[in-house]
Amino acid sequence: MNNKNHYVIIMAGGIGSRFWPMSRSKFPKQFHDILGRGKTLIQETFERFQAYIPTENIYVVTNERYKGLVQSQLPEMSDDQILLEPVGRNTAPCVAYAAYKINKINPNATFVVAPSDHLIAKEEVFRDKLLLGLNACETQDIIMTLGITPTRPDTGYGYIQFLEDDQNRGYYKVKTFTEKPELEVAESFLESGDYVWNAGIFLFSASTIRKAFESFLPEMADQFDSIVDAYYTPQEQEEVNKTYRACQNISIDFGIMEKAENVFVIPADFGWSDLGTWGSVHENSERDMHDNAAQGEAIVYDSFNNMVRTSDGKMVVLKGLEGFIVVDTEDALLICKKDDEQFIKQIVGDLKGKFGEKFV
Amino acid sequence: MNNKNHYVIIMAGGIGSRFWPMSRSKFPKQFHDILGRGKTLIQETFERFQAYIPTENIYVVTNERYKGLVQSQLPEMSDDQILLEPVGRNTAPCVAYAAYKINKINPNATFVVAPSDHLIAKEEVFRDKLLLGLNACETQDIIMTLGITPTRPDTGYGYIQFLEDDQNRGYYKVKTFTEKPELEVAESFLESGDYVWNAGIFLFSASTIRKAFESFLPEMADQFDSIVDAYYTPQEQEEVNKTYRACQNISIDFGIMEKAENVFVIPADFGWSDLGTWGSVHENSERDMHDNAAQGEAIVYDSFNNMVRTSDGKMVVLKGLEGFIVVDTEDALLICKKDDEQFIKQIVGDLKGKFGEKFV
Repeated sequence: MNNKNHYVIIMAGGIGSRFWPMSRSKFPKQFHDILGRGKTLIQETFERFQAYIPTENIYVVTNERYKGLVQSQLPEMSDDQILLEPVGRNTAPCVAYAAYKINKINPNATFVVAPSDHLIAKEEVFRDKLLLGLNACETQDIIMTLGITPTRPDTGYGYIQFLEDDQNRGYYKVKTFTEKPELEVAESFLESGDYVWNAGIFLFSASTIRKAFESFLPEMADQFDSIVDAYYTPQEQEEVNKTYRACQNISIDFGIMEKAENVFVIPADFGWSDLGTWGSVHENSERDMHDNAAQGEAIVYDSFNNMVRTSDGKMVVLKGLEGFIVVDTEDALLICKKDDEQFIKQIVGDLKGKFGEKFV
Repeated sequence: MNNKNHYVIIMAGGIGSRFWPMSRSKFPKQFHDILGRGKTLIQETFERFQAYIPTENIYVVTNERYKGLVQSQLPEMSDDQILLEPVGRNTAPCVAYAAYKINKINPNATFVVAPSDHLIAKEEVFRDKLLLGLNACETQDIIMTLGITPTRPDTGYGYIQFLEDDQNRGYYKVKTFTEKPELEVAESFLESGDYVWNAGIFLFSASTIRKAFESFLPEMADQFDSIVDAYYTPQEQEEVNKTYRACQNISIDFGIMEKAENVFVIPADFGWSDLGTWGSVHENSERDMHDNAAQGEAIVYDSFNNMVRTSDGKMVVLKGLEGFIVVDTEDALLICKKDDEQFIKQIVGDLKGKFGEKFV
C-alpha cells in the first residue's frame, strides 16, 4: 500500500528556452515528448511517482498559463492539485506554497520535491532511494537530497559535498553545496570522491520544512502561512496571486539548502539526466552507428554526431553535416553547432527583442 | 515593331531534381521563384522575350502534367501555344514538334529555342545578340547558337569551339561541340580563347531546321511532318502523343548540332547562368558580408557561405554553419554541404526508391 502521508510536489514552471524552437514560452519543454518516447516529460514524471505515491497526493506547481497543458496532459489531477503561480519567483516560493497548502490538510505529510523535466532511466533504483529518503524524513527532522554519482567533471551541474561516515544508512550529512564550478574545480571534485551532482530533488516532512522557512526565509514563511484559510477554497488563487507578487525571488537551494545544518544526501546512480540541452537529449537517445539521433523521419549521408528533431510527416535529409543540432518546427528551424548549444538562450533573447512573442 | 516572323520556343519540360526539395516532379524548378525576385523563372523568360517577340509567337513545350502550371503562370498564352509532351524524349523531339507545327502556319518563321529556367542578367546585351542571330538566320541557311565567354574552367557546362575570322560579323563558324569536359581539358579550353560555354540557345529558320532534321534525324522529320494536318486542330494532342511514344529519345545537340556543318556561334556575355544548382543560385543572389544568401527570414550567427531557402512565415536560425545549402519546405528539409550539391540528384533517387512519389 502506498503511504497516505507521502506527497510529491512536481515543479513545472520553467520555459526551457535552451530547447527552442521546440520549447516555446506558451508550450515549454516539460510538456513535450522531448525524448520521442510517446509521453511528455511531465507525464513520465507523474507516472513514475504514481507507482508509489497516492495519485491524489501528487501536486504540480506551474505558471498559470500552463494550467490547460497540465489539465490535458494529466487528466487524473484535480484542480486542487494544480498550483498556479501568477509569476515565476524561483523555487523557494513554489515549495513554500505547496508545503503550506498541503500542511493544512495533512500536517503529517512528507514531501518529495522534484523537477518535471528530468530523465530517470533506472526507475527501480530511483524508487528505492526515494522511499529510503521518505522514511528517513518521516522519522527525523532532516532535509534529504538525492545526489548523482558523477561520471565526468560536468561544469553544468551543481555539486554536493558530503561527509563520509560508517553508519551504513545509505545517506550522509551534507557539507557544502557548490553551484556550477569551473572545469578544474569540477575535476578535483570528481577525484575527491565525496562530491555528487545535485539532482534538484529534495525530501522533507511538513514540520521540517516549515521550521526551515521560519529560520531562513521567515518573511516568506509568514506570507504563505498567513493565507492558510484560503487554501483549498475558491479564494486560494486570489490570495496566492497577491502573495507571489509580494514575495522574494529566490531558489530553495540558495534560500534554505545551503544554509540549513540538517541536510543529508543519498548518493545514487539512477540513470539521471536533467535533459538540460539538446546535447543531453542526444546522449540519452538511440543513435545510429555514426552517432546521429533522430526524432522524426531523417535520412543521413556522410553525417556524424547530429541531433535531429522534426515534426510528424516531415522528411529531413542531411548530407555532410557533423556535430549539429537540427530542430524543425512549423514556424522555426534551428541549425546550431552542438558545441554552441548554450548559445540557444541568447538566440531566444534576440528573437524576443526583434519579434516579440512571435517565435519564442 | 516586332517582327511577325520571329518565334520563341521555350523548353520547360525538366524536373530540376538538383533543386529538391523545392523543385518537385509535380512542381519543378522553372515554375518557382528560385531567385526570390517575385517572378518564377518561366515568367522571367517569357517576359524577356515578350519585349521583342510577338506574344502570340511565344510557344512553350512542356510535359502534359505541367499544363496547369503554365496556364496559371503565363495566362496570356493560348492553348495553341502550349505544346504538351506525353513523355520526355529529350530536346530533339521537342524542337521538331514546335518547328513543324509552327511551320504549318508560317513557313517563313525564324525561331529562338531557349530553356525556361536560366538566368540572364544583362537583358539588353541578350536582346542585341538575339536579334543579330535572328536576322542572320532569316537570310542564311545557318543554325546559330549563343556562346558564353567563359570566366572559369567550369566542368559542368558544354563547350563550343569556333573558328576565328576577320569578317567582323559578330558570329563565327562552329568547329566542335564538347560535352562537360574534365578539369584539365576545361582549363586548356579557357586558355585557348576560342571556346565558349554552350548556353543551350539555338536559332534557325523553319526551312533550315526542317532540312537539318531531314538530314540527321530523317525518321523524326517524317514523324512530325506526317501529322501536319492535325496541328492546330482538336486532333493534335492525340497524334502528337502517338508520335512521341514512337520517337527517338535524343538531344538536339547530339542529334543535329554536333553533326551539322552550318552551325555558327555568337560569343557573348549577357550575365548568363544555367542556375543548375543551389550553388549557382547562391552565386547569383544577394549575400551578406559573410557570403550567406537567404531567401526567406533567416538570422545567422558565426555562419559563412550558406544558401538558405525557406517558405513564408518560417524563421531560420543558423549558428556555426559553414558552406551549406539549407532548403526547407512544408514536408521536407535538406541540409547539404555545398560541395556535395551534385549529390542531391541521388538523394531524390533514394527517396523515390523508398517512398515513391511522396517526397520527390
